[in-house]
Amino acid sequence: MITSAEQQHLDASLRLLIERCRSLTIDDLNSRAIITARHSLLDWFGCAVAGANEPAARRFRGIMDPAPGDTPLIGTPDSLHWRDALVINAFNGHLLDFDDMLPSFSGHPSAVVVPALLTVGEQTGAGVDKLLTALVVGTEVGDWVASHVLPGHYDAGWHATGTLGTFAAAAAVCHLRGLSHDEWISALDAAATQAAGLKAMFGTLAKPMHAGNASQAGVVAASLSTITSSSGRALNGETGFISNYRGAGTVPPARREGFAIEGMLYKTYASCFMTQAAVDAGAQAATLPGLDRALITLSVSPKLADVCAIEDPRTSNDAKFSLHATFALSALGFDLSTEEAFHPDNLQDPAYQDLRERITLRFDPELAGQEPRIGVHIRRARGESWDTTVDRGQPATDLAAREKQLVQKFTRLVEPHLGATRTRLASDLILHSSRTTIPELTAATTQPLIPETTI
Amino acid sequence: MITSAEQQHLDASLRLLIERCRSLTIDDLNSRAIITARHSLLDWFGCAVAGANEPAARRFRGIMDPAPGDTPLIGTPDSLHWRDALVINAFNGHLLDFDDMLPSFSGHPSAVVVPALLTVGEQTGAGVDKLLTALVVGTEVGDWVASHVLPGHYDAGWHATGTLGTFAAAAAVCHLRGLSHDEWISALDAAATQAAGLKAMFGTLAKPMHAGNASQAGVVAASLSTITSSSGRALNGETGFISNYRGAGTVPPARREGFAIEGMLYKTYASCFMTQAAVDAGAQAATLPGLDRALITLSVSPKLADVCAIEDPRTSNDAKFSLHATFALSALGFDLSTEEAFHPDNLQDPAYQDLRERITLRFDPELAGQEPRIGVHIRRARGESWDTTVDRGQPATDLAAREKQLVQKFTRLVEPHLGATRTRLASDLILHSSRTTIPELTAATTQPLIPETTI
Repeated sequence: MITSAEQQHLDASLRLLIERCRSLTIDDLNSRAIITARHSLLDWFGCAVAGANEPAARRFRGIMDPAPGDTPLIGTPDSLHWRDALVINAFNGHLLDFDDMLPSFSGHPSAVVVPALLTVGEQTGAGVDKLLTALVVGTEVGDWVASHVLPGHYDAGWHATGTLGTFAAAAAVCHLRGLSHDEWISALDAAATQAAGLKAMFGTLAKPMHAGNASQAGVVAASLSTITSSSGRALNGETGFISNYRGAGTVPPARREGFAIEGMLYKTYASCFMTQAAVDAGAQAATLPGLDRALITLSVSPKLADVCAIEDPRTSNDAKFSLHATFALSALGFDLSTEEAFHPDNLQDPAYQDLRERITLRFDPELAGQEPRIGVHIRRARGESWDTTVDRGQPATDLAAREKQLVQKFTRLVEPHLGATRTRLASDLILHSSRTTIPELTAATTQPLIPETTI
Repeated sequence: MITSAEQQHLDASLRLLIERCRSLTIDDLNSRAIITARHSLLDWFGCAVAGANEPAARRFRGIMDPAPGDTPLIGTPDSLHWRDALVINAFNGHLLDFDDMLPSFSGHPSAVVVPALLTVGEQTGAGVDKLLTALVVGTEVGDWVASHVLPGHYDAGWHATGTLGTFAAAAAVCHLRGLSHDEWISALDAAATQAAGLKAMFGTLAKPMHAGNASQAGVVAASLSTITSSSGRALNGETGFISNYRGAGTVPPARREGFAIEGMLYKTYASCFMTQAAVDAGAQAATLPGLDRALITLSVSPKLADVCAIEDPRTSNDAKFSLHATFALSALGFDLSTEEAFHPDNLQDPAYQDLRERITLRFDPELAGQEPRIGVHIRRARGESWDTTVDRGQPATDLAAREKQLVQKFTRLVEPHLGATRTRLASDLILHSSRTTIPELTAATTQPLIPETTI
């Protein structure tokens, strides 16, 4: 339960947030926010095109038995009725678990917000600038809710992408549709009453479905606010969302400059976010002489013990959640940005097994709260040692370098499905166009814009 | 958090429940359970036909922008794509808030289960016997989950129809589709991870939408279990549903004989469930000589203070949540089974106002936990007093009398939309047929079976 003083504080803070967000246009955004929104858009499209062509995506589509319609299914030549397209696009975008991540949100806001905006934007004919602004706004509002329930919310077992994503999608759609202040309040209430998703389902197809459900719930919440109104109690009330979903360990929200989206992180490698630093560290260590007999100690947060500490994984998926495997594969020169690197055969290779056995994991309490960070200590045969630290918890400062990496990732994910030319056109459109409409954007990743052979 | 001993106990209990439910056929049910299932089916259809023709139902359908398809929309000549039909049918059935209620579940299981079964049954071609059995099974499993989280779950602010209804729908569909034990477990996990709905949204159109969302989530959960599996941890695990959604005041589950559905209660009057006894008491008091100057004391549970204690309501909807108004209108001879009785004009009538002002509400702590019960004390002018108690918290013992009442209610709700002949045919079919298929059943409440004029 929350006190009435706390409610008043929440109400006032939310009112200010909505006022600030409602009137926001692309001109109010700093370039770091705009570029990051474009990077998230690019990253989402890449994941969605590749995801749509996975066998699991076909199975999910099968059980949803969708209706045909006008909303494009990204990465395919098909279009479906809006609600089916929305759920399946959002599912596909999160299926590979390769999309962006916002630490202050403990999850993947774009996975929920982008497909909601594409669906609604398909109907409203909005352009890319509006889409980017709404993505910034959705992330901002999702982050506001997150700041009032995290870390207890995530620690208690809720999957923030599913729960908090609902608010992010609802707010983004409210912005895109230009709804009134009261409608925003009602929409966030309607999001609160639909928020669901448990971490206990990680490792199953329910995880990407959480993104689909949250995306759908967010769009429906925004629409519902136009036919029924409420006063914010489902979000801020005595027995509303914040009260019921914040678990035990709530802390006062952190103050922050700029826009929440500026904190976005991107995966370079097709493994768990918390192993990304291990892959970078492995690549650095690869050049060390004498690595083939060295003893390696990886220091990480104790919170990773039940996240990615599988010592001797045998399947591809387990390898993605193994600090041992990701460091060792990377140190042996495998390119972990591709699925192939995680092939079970590679996990049987004697050189890999030899290296893996020389790795010790050390849980360092001082790294608690800094999960994307890894400390590496390598002691070589003659007693020489080498130390490095890699922190993947901070957003990139060099945005051009990040963009280059993200275009490479996009190309790897999309080219097999759309061909080289269309892949290049799509990434150019997403990164550089501001007049393009959403239907043009989605067409670039579904129907061919220009037949491949005529270029 | 729940302990591992508690988890083991829950796992074992759930395993037994699923084994018992999976193999259940109509021949295993006692006649009270079968008749009650038919009564719930009749009651749901009546509410859904009337609900579908309300302006709010049209507005909700508008925002859902549904796809056409093969699944009938009850109470209309239309049919929609399965997921749209499911959500909208469930919304319509709960829109009037006039449907059945199960105290041990703190909500309306049929509102969620029946539309799910009609949708899936439309595809599988199941008959009424299978439908009734699956409704009993869904109610049973929903009640099992309820017994492990109530009363804390409801007190903390969750709307059980939305949250627990998801499990009831999932289990009913698992039964109808004949899924394996492991698929049941996975389906209940997939229900757990989609369960949502807050009481803070009571009084808005989100309340009937909770039934729609839960119904949809239940059907999707059952389907998802056929393409991805999990081990029960989202329901019974350390940070699963039971652990996270049980609020503070959990008590050990009550032991019960027979089937949960046998405890079902039905509304006779179009007002809040907790005012039903006041209406009955008012009708009894109507015959008392000297009522026009008597002083009336109504004794109820203190828990009704924020449920139905509006002293001087001015709108129809407020009157439905007023013990004063429902008792007084009934005592003055209005028929509260009709919407018209609650017309604001009646609330301005001098005789009504005079009677209402002589009513005192007394909150009696001894009635806590017995909310559907009312004590009436009437002191007449010459000091004579009259006392009665009405308890609407016990299921009817005379099932034939209940059936008669429910047929009357069904007729009042359905006749304006389907005409007298089709209304009679529909109630006969629902109450007496066992070979009828689900498509025949839904056709009886959508497309004309026999043109009205030829009979």
